[in-house]
Amino acid sequence: MSSTADLLARRNRTIGPYSPLFYREPLQFVAAKGVWFTEASGDRYLDGYNNVPHVGHANERVVRALADQAATLNVHTRYLNDRVIDYSERLLATFADDLDRVFFGNSGSEANELALRISRQLTGATGVIVSDYSYHGTTIALAEMTTGLETREPLGAHVRAIRIPDLDRDSRPEADVLAATLSEVDAAIASLQEAGFGVAACLFDPLFSTEGMPRVPEGLLPEIASRVRVAGGLVIADEVQSGFGRTGSHMWGHELTALSPDLVTMGKPMGNGHPMSAVVTSEPVLDAFGSRNEFFNTFAGNPVSAAVGEAVLLEMEEHGMMARARSLGRTARAHLDGVADSYDFVRAAKGTGMFLGLDFAVDGAPAPELAARVVEEMKARKVLISRIGRDQSVLKVRPPLAFGEAELPILLDALDASLASVRA
Amino acid sequence: MSSTADLLARRNRTIGPYSPLFYREPLQFVAAKGVWFTEASGDRYLDGYNNVPHVGHANERVVRALADQAATLNVHTRYLNDRVIDYSERLLATFADDLDRVFFGNSGSEANELALRISRQLTGATGVIVSDYSYHGTTIALAEMTTGLETREPLGAHVRAIRIPDLDRDSRPEADVLAATLSEVDAAIASLQEAGFGVAACLFDPLFSTEGMPRVPEGLLPEIASRVRVAGGLVIADEVQSGFGRTGSHMWGHELTALSPDLVTMGKPMGNGHPMSAVVTSEPVLDAFGSRNEFFNTFAGNPVSAAVGEAVLLEMEEHGMMARARSLGRTARAHLDGVADSYDFVRAAKGTGMFLGLDFAVDGAPAPELAARVVEEMKARKVLISRIGRDQSVLKVRPPLAFGEAELPILLDALDASLASVRA
Repeated sequence: MSSTADLLARRNRTIGPYSPLFYREPLQFVAAKGVWFTEASGDRYLDGYNNVPHVGHANERVVRALADQAATLNVHTRYLNDRVIDYSERLLATFADDLDRVFFGNSGSEANELALRISRQLTGATGVIVSDYSYHGTTIALAEMTTGLETREPLGAHVRAIRIPDLDRDSRPEADVLAATLSEVDAAIASLQEAGFGVAACLFDPLFSTEGMPRVPEGLLPEIASRVRVAGGLVIADEVQSGFGRTGSHMWGHELTALSPDLVTMGKPMGNGHPMSAVVTSEPVLDAFGSRNEFFNTFAGNPVSAAVGEAVLLEMEEHGMMARARSLGRTARAHLDGVADSYDFVRAAKGTGMFLGLDFAVDGAPAPELAARVVEEMKARKVLISRIGRDQSVLKVRPPLAFGEAELPILLDALDASLASVRA
Repeated sequence: MSSTADLLARRNRTIGPYSPLFYREPLQFVAAKGVWFTEASGDRYLDGYNNVPHVGHANERVVRALADQAATLNVHTRYLNDRVIDYSERLLATFADDLDRVFFGNSGSEANELALRISRQLTGATGVIVSDYSYHGTTIALAEMTTGLETREPLGAHVRAIRIPDLDRDSRPEADVLAATLSEVDAAIASLQEAGFGVAACLFDPLFSTEGMPRVPEGLLPEIASRVRVAGGLVIADEVQSGFGRTGSHMWGHELTALSPDLVTMGKPMGNGHPMSAVVTSEPVLDAFGSRNEFFNTFAGNPVSAAVGEAVLLEMEEHGMMARARSLGRTARAHLDGVADSYDFVRAAKGTGMFLGLDFAVDGAPAPELAARVVEEMKARKVLISRIGRDQSVLKVRPPLAFGEAELPILLDALDASLASVRA
């Protein structure tokens, strides 16, 4: 095994110096099991950050499904194959009745691209409404909609980015905040129509993860959706971060917000790290797109991915992971609410289930440097978290759903100690 | 296991009736090993078609690498990780010295999207030159460049599709054919510049697989590339089909045609069916893009994909698969040339290495229905092939590179019998 310095040098000469790394001093892991990493030094780190290894790093059922199916058959969907249909049925059973068809892909970017492509074709429009600090993928079309990280592409002329309000940062009455945002949406729609783009879709992560988990007015997303539909657009819920039971209360983030999407995209946790994604939609939408395009994705829906996806769903179910996320999330959120009350520089606790945060602010202004210090303090205590939000001032606590009762006190103790250390 | 009829009905109710299937009566496979499928009926089929299971279906080394690494660690590249760097070095060692950096992705579509995105950013232009019967992926930007299958998107105003000539179908002297194509390229470049798009890139599969493996004039691609470069554009080689030693003579298709690309994209065979892809480029190109964009792809470059990719390269090397593709390809091509001489309705044999074809024509007109009949006759003899080309008149023989000396006579005997049956 390489030393860290040597590995960094080799990394710079292959995948390059811009490939992002976490932490001031990067970590080099050699193994992981459940919610624990083992570093090259032998030290163990608790994973409070990674949502991709959803049912736990190196989950035995998932690895067995992967290995067994790969040793048996791995091929595209141009031949008939039981596994992908079994899995499709199991996945679709977690959705409302009208969301009963699925396209598979290999990444969240592919899923969002396809949802956008379908929306453009079905509406004949190109205009898109997104949140003004969001991220949905790496492709050209998605880069033109990106406001949540640095891309060289300017925001597309056909894109309108709406500021998602945060009641924790807004002193106006909730109804006024809602009305202001909806009038921003109305103006965006009018502007897209006047410019001739029309409205193809709105695309939102129901939890507004990248945005920093704002506490939004009741009914915000359904109200936006109904306006977009009146303008002829489709409604896309990006569940790459909020799906698969992460909220604890619902399998899908859009259910939590009472949004009824036309298209639901999913990725990251779907295959526990195996590259796979999907767009779930209705029969009319699938038919309208499928009948007009020869659409085929070589790797998508292969039996190995299907076996892995099924193992993830079975593992979640057998271990009651969603219910556990709910109960642990409540305990954790209560603790974070207490922290927010105790620390001047913590504006509010954020999130639900196994997606939680703390918003740092000093004299009403976001305090990203405090959040950064807490992230590093947590790392020094061998607990991994990160930060998000337009100001990078919100701690991002988003562990594998395999996170258990034994681990929660370790994370919260490390957080308390880190906060005390930052205050000192 | 479901009956075929039941499975088809369930398939229509989940992934839908438009998801393409091969053959008049689709095949349902339950297992595959090496170059042999096992059908639900228990019958075995020889795989003369699939390039994704490059080193053989259910290859033991690949499955072991996949299972071992998935049981150890599977995580993104924001932590340091030996496996992805080891693999990057091994992969880059197969390229010319100036192609020494790599971006990873999860599909050929992602690779071509990124190559296009990089080209647009680095040139400040959007114009693209492709072949007029080509396919490079499923995204919106790639659909706007697609002419090789049905998409609802019209050809982009910024796209020029060049007719790739086939000397087997053209009676003019080779030099005249070359000159005519290059003047078409000159006109395309002028038109892109006049329209204000400029030239961002040309993007070609060096073997022109989708186009039906035309026999092109010597020097065609380097000549096109030099014109594109003069106009400020970058040169992208799409090696999704032609790479990884398929030609038998070279690791990469662009080497066969003496093309020096700025960006090389690869996918399908790279992970033997595990979803992975890459863009290989130079240090200046990586730096120019990386320094201006926060670019990160969650699944890409994970240690499981790296372990699998490495196993593919090792397996190719250990079993001398490229050399075998060369020698078997010569034998097969000689046989196909003999067929072309013997049958009135076979215009020409096509291809090289383990990517071969026969072009069917009657009275000088493409005969797709004959090609279709041969494909079905081959299936009846339990050998899988397909057809390609603008007229769907070219047989597509593109087996796993694990194809061996024992299998070649089986395929060629079945082909002879199928041709005789079609002539009868």
